[in-house]
Amino acid sequence: MRRIRLILEYDGGAYAGWQRQTNAVSVQQKLEEALRRLTGEETLTVTGASRTDAGVHALGQNAHFDTSSRIPADKFSFALNTLLPEDIRVRQSSEVGERFHARFSASGKEYRYLFYSAPHSSALYRNLCAHVIYPLDTALMRAEAQSMLGRHDFAPFAASGSVVKDTVREIDFVSLYENPPFIEMRVHGNGFLYNMVRILAGTLSGVGSGKLAPGAIKRALKSGSRLELGVTAPPQGLTLMRVDYPEDALI
Amino acid sequence: MRRIRLILEYDGGAYAGWQRQTNAVSVQQKLEEALRRLTGEETLTVTGASRTDAGVHALGQNAHFDTSSRIPADKFSFALNTLLPEDIRVRQSSEVGERFHARFSASGKEYRYLFYSAPHSSALYRNLCAHVIYPLDTALMRAEAQSMLGRHDFAPFAASGSVVKDTVREIDFVSLYENPPFIEMRVHGNGFLYNMVRILAGTLSGVGSGKLAPGAIKRALKSGSRLELGVTAPPQGLTLMRVDYPEDALI
Repeated sequence: MRRIRLILEYDGGAYAGWQRQTNAVSVQQKLEEALRRLTGEETLTVTGASRTDAGVHALGQNAHFDTSSRIPADKFSFALNTLLPEDIRVRQSSEVGERFHARFSASGKEYRYLFYSAPHSSALYRNLCAHVIYPLDTALMRAEAQSMLGRHDFAPFAASGSVVKDTVREIDFVSLYENPPFIEMRVHGNGFLYNMVRILAGTLSGVGSGKLAPGAIKRALKSGSRLELGVTAPPQGLTLMRVDYPEDALI
Repeated sequence: MRRIRLILEYDGGAYAGWQRQTNAVSVQQKLEEALRRLTGEETLTVTGASRTDAGVHALGQNAHFDTSSRIPADKFSFALNTLLPEDIRVRQSSEVGERFHARFSASGKEYRYLFYSAPHSSALYRNLCAHVIYPLDTALMRAEAQSMLGRHDFAPFAASGSVVKDTVREIDFVSLYENPPFIEMRVHGNGFLYNMVRILAGTLSGVGSGKLAPGAIKRALKSGSRLELGVTAPPQGLTLMRVDYPEDALI
């Protein structure tokens, strides 16, 4: 058996998210179907780094699977791309050591959130960004975002349905880039709670539009209350850009 | 009667192009349907600046129509956007003089062509760019593109089905921007023949990939032969960015 790592890009618009579900089509299911067809291994399963939600995109999702197939590791990408729908692409495939685990070996992740700030929504980019109809004060948003930096108990940023126990995470980078009418947020950390980036995005747009008083993130981290924060921003603005692994996790 | 100018954005993926057709859905048809519903004027027609082809996008298409409706000119955008599908948006609406004609008053147009140069196609941006699987020499492409500049008889750049008689156009700007894996071409001129930008894009990628010898554009402009040039690049890479009008055309 060999362990193969995949780097994946997908348009989340047509999927109920990464994770296999009973009544809806997931990215994981499409990938497993393609891999089972390719290898003939009917019980082959794929493990993803991040369980991206319905409608969320990825440019750098990671996943692994084990196989007895003799297909050269770097050829899985080409073979899979002939079997996958065009809204899922394997960007790269490589052999990794048997200790590598797409989810548990990850040391960091980077997400992008794209706002489209204009009176009218975008026809061309509508599936890549979240439309914000009111003007945004990006200086206020940038200042607010800095409160995310460091090691915090991010429990107020966890969606209510979340079952994870340890809600402490460390954020080491957050920034806003303006390219009107787009405003791009990038955030990097050692891990993220379910919906955390979308709640951050909703909080920043709340502060930027004047609906939320600046300091919301500080207040929430202090009080532990989700109510201090903004709405959960819509999924189509969110893209998983990259998953980091320590070099020794790959061998 | 008042004449209203619209600035339009659309995702061409679902449409048979701008122009109304008998057996397929066009952007013009969707727009006329929405306007007729809004104004109650059952014979209202819309004239576009550019008859963009099936699958081609627009961020700055222009159009005009005449109406007796009392809706304030700048409110047409908001009213139409509630009636239009989300892949067509009116970015702006304004009253113009009765001599304004979206097509005949235009003094210039700018197009963008987006290449995606990578071993695998893009899942997320697949509807916005043309995948080129072989590496592109952008220095060669940039040099080749310069032969477009100036006033030329661009007949070899006209698709074979074209009926236009005067094939002389003037190109005053062409440039390539690299943002890997994207390569963006921008071209501005006083007008373009049918498929001209897509033939230019196909020629540049042909030269950039080594399939066409550099100098193809010069040879074609001299010989008048379409055969010197590359293939017609696919429509989803092309976006009409802007239509220019002299200031006195608007009043």
